[in-house]
Amino acid sequence: MDPTPPKGTATRVRRHPERGAYDRETIAAILDEAFVCHLGFVHDGRPFVIPTIHARAGEVLYLHGSPASRMLRTLADGVDVCVTVTLLDGLVLARSVYNHSMNYRSAVVLGRAREVTDRDEKLAALATIVEHMVPGRSGDARGPSDKELAGTLVLALALDEASAKIRRGPPSDFDADRDLPVWSGVVPMRLVLDPPEPDSNIPPRVDLPDYLASSRSAGRTDL
Amino acid sequence: MDPTPPKGTATRVRRHPERGAYDRETIAAILDEAFVCHLGFVHDGRPFVIPTIHARAGEVLYLHGSPASRMLRTLADGVDVCVTVTLLDGLVLARSVYNHSMNYRSAVVLGRAREVTDRDEKLAALATIVEHMVPGRSGDARGPSDKELAGTLVLALALDEASAKIRRGPPSDFDADRDLPVWSGVVPMRLVLDPPEPDSNIPPRVDLPDYLASSRSAGRTDL
Repeated sequence: MDPTPPKGTATRVRRHPERGAYDRETIAAILDEAFVCHLGFVHDGRPFVIPTIHARAGEVLYLHGSPASRMLRTLADGVDVCVTVTLLDGLVLARSVYNHSMNYRSAVVLGRAREVTDRDEKLAALATIVEHMVPGRSGDARGPSDKELAGTLVLALALDEASAKIRRGPPSDFDADRDLPVWSGVVPMRLVLDPPEPDSNIPPRVDLPDYLASSRSAGRTDL
Repeated sequence: MDPTPPKGTATRVRRHPERGAYDRETIAAILDEAFVCHLGFVHDGRPFVIPTIHARAGEVLYLHGSPASRMLRTLADGVDVCVTVTLLDGLVLARSVYNHSMNYRSAVVLGRAREVTDRDEKLAALATIVEHMVPGRSGDARGPSDKELAGTLVLALALDEASAKIRRGPPSDFDADRDLPVWSGVVPMRLVLDPPEPDSNIPPRVDLPDYLASSRSAGRTDL
């Protein structure tokens, strides 16, 4: 991790600067592991934050915008957004209330999102989003029709202004608190995927595909 | 769940209105189960979204604001915020790319946050936040000193304008897609807590307390 913040960026980590990271690999890994992001934007002067699906392709973050399309579409010619992704790794129980914390890895991307209108880029972005959910899936599921493509909003955001913030490890207890008769430590936390459940209404006519039968990535799934 | 939206609120669910819920019990349960929220606010006209710890006390949502204190403190006399909480329940794999989705439960709270300055309310709010992390913990950990209290920012947000959005169940495939040779179903997802790990640097002088040895709540922990 590179703890040196780029100058003059709004994403510089000010509280606990030692937790900041700005190198592309760290930021990319957090974006890639998270299943949802929280997309913030301003509408009529007020902040809105909606959860949505994302996927990274190189230096671009694609966002599946349909849940907020009404608001996002009304903001013409580019939308200032803040995309935040948070992975929870544990509860940090210190001897003092003050030093309680969480272990987490978060990434923040700021910028002006553009709507993806090019047909090829849009198709590729949707495939990337589906691959982000389940690698191998985009070659299996039926691709979008023209009507479906028109009914889907995809936003693109360059990873120009981004930072990560990470807390890991044991509690940071004060020396004066060490002798207190209070248990201190971490309760680790992780997101697990349980075995796939076939559609109960319309059972699939095919067996579970290989890409669902095998593990996705070490920390992330129990497939 | 009450699917009837209150009139004229900015939190009304417009996309997939059948997924909306506005009754207090549904919203409270989502806020109570989540370990972090995403706090959105506007600073210099730009949106910012930061993850932070929260806890609900009746009709008030308390936010632990220190990670954003610099920005939040500069906004005098109340801060327009949007607090969004998302619980992930599964990947929804439809036969078509278009109908892929996630199962989730999310809650959005809009309003003007106030800084909690009353000493008693602030102490109670911090205890509520610690109890939200681990029930039973606030009676065990050392309480805040005056200096620690002054160094902690707590925001309060009334649950006046809030909504929930929930997707559950199998994929919503189109009839025309039913015969496609594509597996369709849900991959369930859940956040689990692993066994507590004592501080390796300064091992606690006490055994694991009962409140950490027992299960917290059915869906949420494996303690």
